[in-house]
Order: sequence, then structure tokens, then C-alpha cells
Amino acid sequence: MMLLELKQKTWEANQDLVRRGLVLYTFGNASGIDRNENLVVIKPSGVDYDKLRPEHMVVCNMDGKIVEGDLRPSSDLATHLEIYRSFPQIGGVVHTHSKNATAWAQSGRDIPALGTTHADYFHGPVPCTRELTDDEIRGDYVLNTGHAIVERFQGIDPLAVPGVLVAGHAPFAWGRDPIDAAHNAVVLEAVAEMAFMTVLLNPHAGVSQALLDRHYYRKHGAAATYGQR
Amino acid sequence: MMLLELKQKTWEANQDLVRRGLVLYTFGNASGIDRNENLVVIKPSGVDYDKLRPEHMVVCNMDGKIVEGDLRPSSDLATHLEIYRSFPQIGGVVHTHSKNATAWAQSGRDIPALGTTHADYFHGPVPCTRELTDDEIRGDYVLNTGHAIVERFQGIDPLAVPGVLVAGHAPFAWGRDPIDAAHNAVVLEAVAEMAFMTVLLNPHAGVSQALLDRHYYRKHGAAATYGQR
Amino acid sequence: MMLLELKQKTWEANQDLVRRGLVLYTFGNASGIDRNENLVVIKPSGVDYDKLRPEHMVVCNMDGKIVEGDLRPSSDLATHLEIYRSFPQIGGVVHTHSKNATAWAQSGRDIPALGTTHADYFHGPVPCTRELTDDEIRGDYVLNTGHAIVERFQGIDPLAVPGVLVAGHAPFAWGRDPIDAAHNAVVLEAVAEMAFMTVLLNPHAGVSQALLDRHYYRKHGAAATYGQR
Amino acid sequence: MMLLELKQKTWEANQDLVRRGLVLYTFGNASGIDRNENLVVIKPSGVDYDKLRPEHMVVCNMDGKIVEGDLRPSSDLATHLEIYRSFPQIGGVVHTHSKNATAWAQSGRDIPALGTTHADYFHGPVPCTRELTDDEIRGDYVLNTGHAIVERFQGIDPLAVPGVLVAGHAPFAWGRDPIDAAHNAVVLEAVAEMAFMTVLLNPHAGVSQALLDRHYYRKHGAAATYGQR
Repeated sequence: MMLLELKQKTWEANQDLVRRGLVLYTFGNASGIDRNENLVVIKPSGVDYDKLRPEHMVVCNMDGKIVEGDLRPSSDLATHLEIYRSFPQIGGVVHTHSKNATAWAQSGRDIPALGTTHADYFHGPVPCTRELTDDEIRGDYVLNTGHAIVERFQGIDPLAVPGVLVAGHAPFAWGRDPIDAAHNAVVLEAVAEMAFMTVLLNPHAGVSQALLDRHYYRKHGAAATYGQR
Repeated sequence: MMLLELKQKTWEANQDLVRRGLVLYTFGNASGIDRNENLVVIKPSGVDYDKLRPEHMVVCNMDGKIVEGDLRPSSDLATHLEIYRSFPQIGGVVHTHSKNATAWAQSGRDIPALGTTHADYFHGPVPCTRELTDDEIRGDYVLNTGHAIVERFQGIDPLAVPGVLVAGHAPFAWGRDPIDAAHNAVVLEAVAEMAFMTVLLNPHAGVSQALLDRHYYRKHGAAATYGQR
Repeated sequence: MMLLELKQKTWEANQDLVRRGLVLYTFGNASGIDRNENLVVIKPSGVDYDKLRPEHMVVCNMDGKIVEGDLRPSSDLATHLEIYRSFPQIGGVVHTHSKNATAWAQSGRDIPALGTTHADYFHGPVPCTRELTDDEIRGDYVLNTGHAIVERFQGIDPLAVPGVLVAGHAPFAWGRDPIDAAHNAVVLEAVAEMAFMTVLLNPHAGVSQALLDRHYYRKHGAAATYGQR
Repeated sequence: MMLLELKQKTWEANQDLVRRGLVLYTFGNASGIDRNENLVVIKPSGVDYDKLRPEHMVVCNMDGKIVEGDLRPSSDLATHLEIYRSFPQIGGVVHTHSKNATAWAQSGRDIPALGTTHADYFHGPVPCTRELTDDEIRGDYVLNTGHAIVERFQGIDPLAVPGVLVAGHAPFAWGRDPIDAAHNAVVLEAVAEMAFMTVLLNPHAGVSQALLDRHYYRKHGAAATYGQR
């Protein structure tokens, strides 16, 4: 068996999504990448989370071919692969239909940066992609979803904004590894929920760039002061 | 004892509704049909879910007469029967007062198709019936509820849209069997919750027909690519 | 020890409120009345629910004097007593600060009858009292709260509408006995939550009197058809 | 080991925040002060709550220097210290990112006093600070947050209004000791949730000063009548 540690982490990330209430039935998936081997480990498609074991994780190459595993990989594999190809800094990708983030994705709106909870994780709005064209949908849809994500991140550092809303669909999040990606997906959902309430209370709410910078760099980068470092 | 397997499935479907938080007290019921025998198995009326056992399920014929069982069938029986008569493709029916779907039913609005979570299960809006007339309410009310549902589905394939909102009342959902019907009721509630938030964020939200088609046919029909098939 | 059965039921009603999520800390109370003895059994004031035992229930007469018990009765006792005096049909009263019903009370709005869930329990809107005057607040405030409730029910049968919103405060509910009162408080909270969402989806939502009548008399009165009767 | 009892209470307050659902991951902290020793006990920064033990609490002096403990104190320490310095009546401080209170903080709005649940704990609106200037953010940000809180409380008794919203950030609450502070943070979150719904139902809702006075003094001060005193 290959990539045992990555399989374990990817499985844990998938379980985190369920435990944190981000996943109903099988509506979500997590993956991890081994950058040396250029292989991706991903949840199999449509398998119940409570029957899922680390050894069920499917190993694919960057063309989406199965390298190890008896089960079919998540139907969102091509989106994961495009994100890994375009964002070489990251090591894990997560997709959920968590309720609040999905509502924002369905509304077609970026989640504005409305406070420090957001700023601690996302250095600016969580962007929403444009809608796909009919041709993109009828063509290589799952890959084109990845293209739309990457297109939306032109000029944005994916580690500074580790998540996206796919318009009319749902969120993706990523991170240094699958567990970090799942953590970011959980925070994205919490941020989305608070932003929903905030814009109903005050449609013009927002915070200064100075505040976003302060909170973001408190947790990230060389000058970070948060936690036991 | 008749129809043991169907009783077991119908009981499981009723338990699923409770476990998933769709049912308060006794506000819901699930049934299943044996198309060979033309008999329907349904939850008894007003019995606590935690005391409910598979053998308590009531067996009725298509005229609503009790064929087996000491308890009275659910008071919504006539609606279930009308749905079975008019939608011969289906094998299970579920009725709940789940909060978000009921709010949409009370508002008298169809749940618009706002994203892929919806499209994976419902190939178009979840329709809301017209209000019943006073005569329909004072007459054979429960049966007339079924008539209003069937009327609303003229031109809609009930397997492509496996649920409905009864105006001023609550949702019904259905499926291949009782467990599938309960599953669709759970998804309907999740979709209703996300749609509620979405229309508050953007009253003009919506997705293209191409996206609805793509997601629906990803999970349904000969060309399905989702899961381990 | 007096009134053991009523103490047990009153204790159970108090526990139901906690188990159903209607009570935070000690923000609620249930009572029951013995109409033969003209004695009321009520939860003591400010005691943690998890330390509460049936024998802690306080017995008072209709003047609010303690007849048995070492603890002080709920600070809302005078409201309970006024409700018992004015609504001789009822045997239990419950007060909570459950979130959705309290939000409606704070808004000063009746909860309109928007669907059958409501109609199965409340035969018309759940009324909201007028605000108390400053003199009423500075005077015998708890009793005056009871007066405002009774005033609001002129022309309304308290068994047909077993609950009220006290403006700027929170709900009271009642029933045949304390357990029935708690049940009605739970349904009131569910109805309030769905009504909140409904009026945001459609400010003009509402149902016909015929539908209210049909559902109400399905569960109440001589012609009731619901449950195992 | 110093201040064992205060460490235990501070640890309990931190656990309360998690148990009551106010804290996601490590987004919160509680502290307590020994007014005789002029020492503050506070949660360490970024440590998982389920691994946290009373002995992990960090002891600091009023200049923020660590007096005992191997871990770094919460990154919000300077805000806690400023609150302790300016509000000599209090013995515990809590900071969370609880969802509803944070949404109000992000909206930049005071939580208006809309009912008796609020009035039982907060004798007037829960105030929201002004936004910090860019210079304040780029300077001694955590201390300046404390200054903005204290500035906002000019003319307000911090024991009569034991909490605040920091604009674009999140709530702080306080009390006689850390457990009381956590209790107030829990109530603040409940009050914020009900206020959110209330202003959507009625943007002009509000209660009279007489009602606020009545409920506040029912639980506080020499004439209090609530509980077993």
C-alpha cells in the first residue's frame, strides 16, 4: 500500500467534515497531494462516511488515472487536480456543501471581509467565481469548474485566501495538507454564517484594510504572534 | 404477518425522519407500497416514534381499508394513496413538517433551483400547490390534498422532482421505496434551508438550465457518473 | 407531602422544557393546579434544572402564600395565578424565553396563523399583549402581566389558543395539565420559528379560515380524527 | 503553584464557553484576577480546549509579564488587562467569537434592549465600540482595543452592562469572577440571537425604560427578588 500517511490524513480530513456538521450524506470530499510523487489521494465517490476507512482512499496521478484502489474516485477529482496544478503551494483540498457557504455561492456573492474572524484566515473577501457558460457546463464540466476557480484567483495568493465559492454550486477550501484544508472549510462555514447575519443587520458593514492586515499577519508569516510558536 | 420487509423499510424510513431532525413529536409519517399486492404499509396515527416498532405498521388497501393491524393509520393516508395511484413509478411516500420546507410551503412559493445541491435531486423548482378552496377543505380534505399535488405535477416527472410543497401546510416527498423517500425529504429540507438564506442574500439568484441538467443527469439515468456503479 | 402526583407532573414539565431546548439556565418555569384544593404547584425560583427534584416543587394557595416547601416560588408566580383564576378550563401553565417565540414577543407582533402546524394547536393567531404602562410596571408588575394576558384574551377561548406572547418579554403557554402546557410551549416555539422564516419569504402569507377550522377540529372536539382514540 | 482556586475557576469558565457552543477551535479565552496580588490568570494562546488543564493557565502581572507558566498567554491579554485596570469592580473577563454577538459587532450596531431577557442582565443596550483608527490598529492594537472599550463605557456602569461589542471584531463580557463572566457571555449570545430575529420582524421594536429598570433591579441590587436569597 502506497502513501499510508497521506491516506490517513485525507481520511481524517473527511471525518472532520462530518464531525463538524459540514457534510450531509456524501456531499463532500477531501484530498491530499504528495508533491514528490505527484500523486493525489482522494475520497472514493458516494461512499458513506461511517463505512469509510483510510485504506479506501483512492490514489490517482495528475491525469486522473487511478494508480491504486478498487473504488472510483470522487466525481469532483478533476476540480481538485486543477487546483493542485495551479496552486503549487498547497497540499490539501476540500469540497463541501456546507449550508451557509453554499448559500453565499448560490447567491453569486463574494463573502465580504466583515471582521477579525474572517481576517484571521482570509486576507480579503472569499471570492465567488463567475457562472460557467453553457458550453463549459456541457463540456468538461468538472475540469472547467477548476479553471473558473483558478481564473478568479488571478492576482490573489491562494494561501492568503484559502477558499472559494463556486457560483451556483458550493465552496472549495484548501491548505498546507488535507487536515489544514478541512480546518479552513470549517472556518469558512462559520465566517459565512456570521456574514449572512451581518449583512442583514447592516448591508454596508465592512472593516478597514489595516484591520484585515493586522489580524491576518498576527496568525501568518514571520511576525506571527498567535499560538505557542 | 404480511409484508414484513416493507414494514421494516417503512419503519426505518420513519425512524430516519426523527434521527435527521425532520419530525417534532408525531408530526410526520412514511409509507411504502407493494405494487404486486396493491397494498400500502403506513405509520399508525399519533403514536410516539420511540415506541414505534415495525410490527405496528398498518397495512391498507388502495381504498384505505385496514387489511392488517390494530391501530388506526396515519390521518394523511388518503393523500399517500392518491400519490401512489397517480405516480405509478414510486414506491414510498413521506410527509413531514420539517421547518424550512414548511416555511416555504407556508409562504406559498416554489423553492427555486438555486444550485447544484438542489439539482442533484430535483430537476427544476420544488413546486408549491395552489391553495385548496373552502369546498375542498370542508369536503374530503385529505384526498383533495392529494388531488392538488397531482394537479400541480401535470407535465412534471415525479421521479425527476421527488417532492412537493402543499401551500399553507408542509412538504411531501417520495422515492423508489420508503427509505429513498425519507432520503429525499432530508435533502429537501437542506435545500429549503439554503434557498431561504440565498434569496435573502440575492432575491434574483438562479442557475442555468444547463447546470441543472448536468447535475441531475450526473446522478440519474443511463449516463450517471456518481457513486460506485 | 402533599399533591405528589401533581408535583411529579410539574417537575416533568419543567424537565421537558430543558430537554426540548426551550430553557437556558433557569429562564423558565412550569406550574400545575389542583382545582379541588385550589392549590398551585410551581418550580422554585432560580434553581438549576439538573438539581431540581419533584419534592422541590413549591405548593402555594391562590393568594400566593406558600403552603408547603422550603424554597421561594418562581418570581412569575403571580402571573401564573392570574391565568389560573381567569381561565378555569386549564390545569397547567408554562413560561419560557424560547428564542423564536421571544423574538416575536419582543417585536410586539401576533404570530399569524400561517399553516397547518399552527392550526393543529392554535385556532387563530397567537396574540401578543399590549405593552404595560409605566405605572403597571412600577406597581404589581408580575400580577399586571397576568392582567394584560387576560385582557388580550377577551373573546378568545384559552383552550383553542393555548399560548400568548407578552410584549417585550416572552411567551406563556398552558394546557389541561403541566405536561400538556409544556407540549404547547414546544409547539409554540416551532410555530414561531417557521413563522419567522415565512414572513421573510412572503410578508403577505396566510391561510383561510376554512383550513384553520379543518385542522383545529381534526385534533380537538367531538369530531377529532387524529391519533388512537 | 500559585492561585490554584483562580486557575480552577478560569479553566472552568473556558470549558463553559466550549460546552455552551460559544467557541470554535481556539477562538476564545477567559481570565480572572486576584485583586490582592494584582495578578491575572489567563488561558494560554492557541491551545486546544480538550487538552487544556487548570495548571496550564498562565499567571501574569498587570504589565503583561509572565509570573508563572511555560506557555504564552492569550494574544488578547493586553485587552483583558486594560479592562481590569479600568473596571475595578470586576473579577473575570471573557472573549469569544460567538456567532450572533459577533454578527452584531461586525455590523457596528449596539444590541438594543428589546426585552426582559436582555434587561435581566444588561441595563441598557450592549454598546458597540467605534472602529479603531489605522494608527491604533498598526500601533499597540490589543491594548488599543481595550482603550476603545473603556472609552465606550464612559458614563456606563460596567457591572450594569457586563459586556461590549468591539466593532468589526467580536464580544467581550465580564463579571464578578471568571465563571460569572462566562455566564454573561452565554446570555449575551442568546440575547444577540433573539435581537437579530426581532429587528428583522420589527425594525422599530424596543421597550420602555420602566421595564428595563424593573427587570434589572429584580435580579440586581438590594431589592432583588429573584432566586433563593
